Amino acid sequence: MECLKNNSGDNIAGKKLSLLLFSCEYDKALAALILANSALEMKMTVNIFCAFWGLCLLRDPNKISAEEKTAWEKMFGLVAPQGADELPLSRLNLAGLGKAMLQEMMKDHDSPDLNDFLHNAQKKGANFFACKLSLDVMGFELEELLPGVEVLTAQEYLQDALTADIQLFI
Amino acid sequence: MECLKNNSGDNIAGKKLSLLLFSCEYDKALAALILANSALEMKMTVNIFCAFWGLCLLRDPNKISAEEKTAWEKMFGLVAPQGADELPLSRLNLAGLGKAMLQEMMKDHDSPDLNDFLHNAQKKGANFFACKLSLDVMGFELEELLPGVEVLTAQEYLQDALTADIQLFI
Amino acid sequence: MECLKNNSGDNIAGKKLSLLLFSCEYDKALAALILANSALEMKMTVNIFCAFWGLCLLRDPNKISAEEKTAWEKMFGLVAPQGADELPLSRLNLAGLGKAMLQEMMKDHDSPDLNDFLHNAQKKGANFFACKLSLDVMGFELEELLPGVEVLTAQEYLQDALTADIQLFI
Repeated sequence: MECLKNNSGDNIAGKKLSLLLFSCEYDKALAALILANSALEMKMTVNIFCAFWGLCLLRDPNKISAEEKTAWEKMFGLVAPQGADELPLSRLNLAGLGKAMLQEMMKDHDSPDLNDFLHNAQKKGANFFACKLSLDVMGFELEELLPGVEVLTAQEYLQDALTADIQLFI
Repeated sequence: MECLKNNSGDNIAGKKLSLLLFSCEYDKALAALILANSALEMKMTVNIFCAFWGLCLLRDPNKISAEEKTAWEKMFGLVAPQGADELPLSRLNLAGLGKAMLQEMMKDHDSPDLNDFLHNAQKKGANFFACKLSLDVMGFELEELLPGVEVLTAQEYLQDALTADIQLFI
Repeated sequence: MECLKNNSGDNIAGKKLSLLLFSCEYDKALAALILANSALEMKMTVNIFCAFWGLCLLRDPNKISAEEKTAWEKMFGLVAPQGADELPLSRLNLAGLGKAMLQEMMKDHDSPDLNDFLHNAQKKGANFFACKLSLDVMGFELEELLPGVEVLTAQEYLQDALTADIQLFI
């Protein structure tokens, strides 16, 4: 691939991929996690900062709690997607039909599903962060998220992104 | 936070954050402005290039004009959001109910609202730019936007982004 | 423009713009291609990696085929947009009315349309890549895409993006 030729001399291992995952759509989370897994296979460092709707990817469906929440927070916790399996498609979701179609097509190609990509990324060492302000405003508790997630402020995200080699907002 | 340790030696003040704000959703604009304010508090330079729907954030609701506009431009000016307060949510907007819920939850946490974040960013020195082509096509006049906004071409945006330390498309 | 002054010493020709086009909305593809054309006019290298819905931009409406496809793939191929002209707006699409309005406004300003921007970018030397995994899962064949498109894995995209000066996820 001629137009890519100037990559050859690069040392890829140790480079850093920084993703700000804002969206909670199934396909966008899939894109983020495919990039994460690909980067990890090349020994890159992967830091994923989940903010706003992106937090939904990190929700553990077995740990959803309504304790110590305001009425708004309880309602919001119910209507927002509860973990990777519940994320909708960004297009052609068609009340779930389009998503089921995509999942069938992925199965036909022996492609892992979103949960597999998520767990693989965690196993291979991706660092998942939850945005502190988003947690507060949306009323999610760290205990309701997947294990291993750390809380980060927007300033800490920026500090980290400054030293990344690729920064994407998804 | 061990995985972030390699930031410590960095000199953050003076680094540049470049945001291309394409969307006009309330939550995405909120994300952009929280990043902007956080960066400004760390003495970073913040340049926000508003294009397409992102221009809606910069519309001053008291200055909407229909003078010297074609029929399409007048109609478009009416249906597109007129300033920060009118931006819808990207998800769960539910004809405004979801947005009202989010705003209540932000109030419960004494969080500033979108307009506060916008004015704080301006006060702290964020530079807001309007995409020239978008202004032309959408029929918005610079006079209809918030004071202090400058017009920039896509080439000027790229030139500026080339010297930025973080570039995000929101 | 004072806040942009630190650009002046830069050598722009030869710098690289890397776009990951995930979305298939008309306005987002327009933003991507306006950036691409602007960068090419400044002699930058432009690599556009089309993944998921972004593949729809590259579909050649005259070459859509249903041969050797599973039932899901055939159905998906029918409901997903078939090329640049079929992409919907991300906002105010209003069953095509909003898009027609935007197109009229672009015509009023003698602005090229999406297809023009696409062909100009190709003519000026933008490199278009199709994500291998997305092609497989969505059941698109390389033969159904515009001529000149190359297939790339996510790892190859990352390797290329690592050497880019601006990386955006659209």
